[in-house]
Amino acid sequence: MNNGCFITFEGIDGSGKSTQISLLEKKLRDAGYDVLLTREPGGTEIGEKIRSIILDPSNEEMDQMTEAYLYASSRAQLVRQVIVPAVNEGRIVICDRFVDSSIAYQAYGRQMGETIELLNSFAVGECLPDITFLLRIEPENTRSRMEGRELDRIEMASDDFHYRTFLGYDQIAAANPDRVVVIDGRDSVEHIHELIMINLQRLDEFDGIR
Amino acid sequence: MNNGCFITFEGIDGSGKSTQISLLEKKLRDAGYDVLLTREPGGTEIGEKIRSIILDPSNEEMDQMTEAYLYASSRAQLVRQVIVPAVNEGRIVICDRFVDSSIAYQAYGRQMGETIELLNSFAVGECLPDITFLLRIEPENTRSRMEGRELDRIEMASDDFHYRTFLGYDQIAAANPDRVVVIDGRDSVEHIHELIMINLQRLDEFDGIR
Repeated sequence: MNNGCFITFEGIDGSGKSTQISLLEKKLRDAGYDVLLTREPGGTEIGEKIRSIILDPSNEEMDQMTEAYLYASSRAQLVRQVIVPAVNEGRIVICDRFVDSSIAYQAYGRQMGETIELLNSFAVGECLPDITFLLRIEPENTRSRMEGRELDRIEMASDDFHYRTFLGYDQIAAANPDRVVVIDGRDSVEHIHELIMINLQRLDEFDGIR
Repeated sequence: MNNGCFITFEGIDGSGKSTQISLLEKKLRDAGYDVLLTREPGGTEIGEKIRSIILDPSNEEMDQMTEAYLYASSRAQLVRQVIVPAVNEGRIVICDRFVDSSIAYQAYGRQMGETIELLNSFAVGECLPDITFLLRIEPENTRSRMEGRELDRIEMASDDFHYRTFLGYDQIAAANPDRVVVIDGRDSVEHIHELIMINLQRLDEFDGIR
């Protein structure tokens, strides 16, 4: 029986997470792994209701502390209802964003500092990713990818906010070198996928995978 | 110019808070005070959306940690958008439930302990009530008052939960004797109102009120 595994993807909006998650999911399924795909905020019925409050552009009066608690509430539900049970059953959980997103966007982007890590500690508990892929790309290089999309409340925030978030991710990567794999998001889709597969091999569950 | 003031009402469901809040509101308005009535969870547009997620009986899979964060998120919004600005403008804010409810229902009722106080500390900050009226009544004495009502997700919880919550309120009162006024919820509506008015006089803003 395989051990379960918890993989997260991080990066600013437009960094290419969705594309890479799809490629990885297909590769792992084809190789016989039992893959569960999920996302934050959301990933559960309750979490998706919370997500809609967080991202609704009409909630313009939302305080950043309210927002922090809402992300944590969705996360608490996802960890307990989905991630921990699935990993315990030996499944491979791939999550589009996790607590690093709160640290990057709120501790750094919104400049809320250590409050965010403390506030989230009850939601996360012992549930940390085995490996995190950070698709690193400067906000100004994602603009063309975002064009034509209808922006949500977070995506509509200022350029300064997005740049602080981008730098926040670098801080997280620097502080967690064993967990976070930094990949240049400007590389080709194929090359990034290749780098993800190479780095996955460091985990026992994926020994010898290509 | 009057100083503002922050008054909360606490007690288990069916303890008579709504009735007493209405009486107090009328009395204070008649005496010329600028009163703002609000409630938890809710009290803001965003908070009411959060409230509907918390209380919806269909959200039966909600983890108690998710619930704790949702209450805190609604509270964070209410404190920043409503309570602090109103008190700073010299208004009298009367709130139906506040952080004591989280302590009673979750720390004690759900037996989550000190996590709840820590988790809420970021939401509350320095914003504590000037005075809290605890309408103390045993759960078994509220049954007739609750009959015929459609129960929400919290009201549907077990008798043990409601009894632990009731005892939790006693712990809170014992730990905060300067702030929390304990009133026997079995007394007549008129007598309880009288006791509330008498105890309000301890605050400078209500010196001499009857």
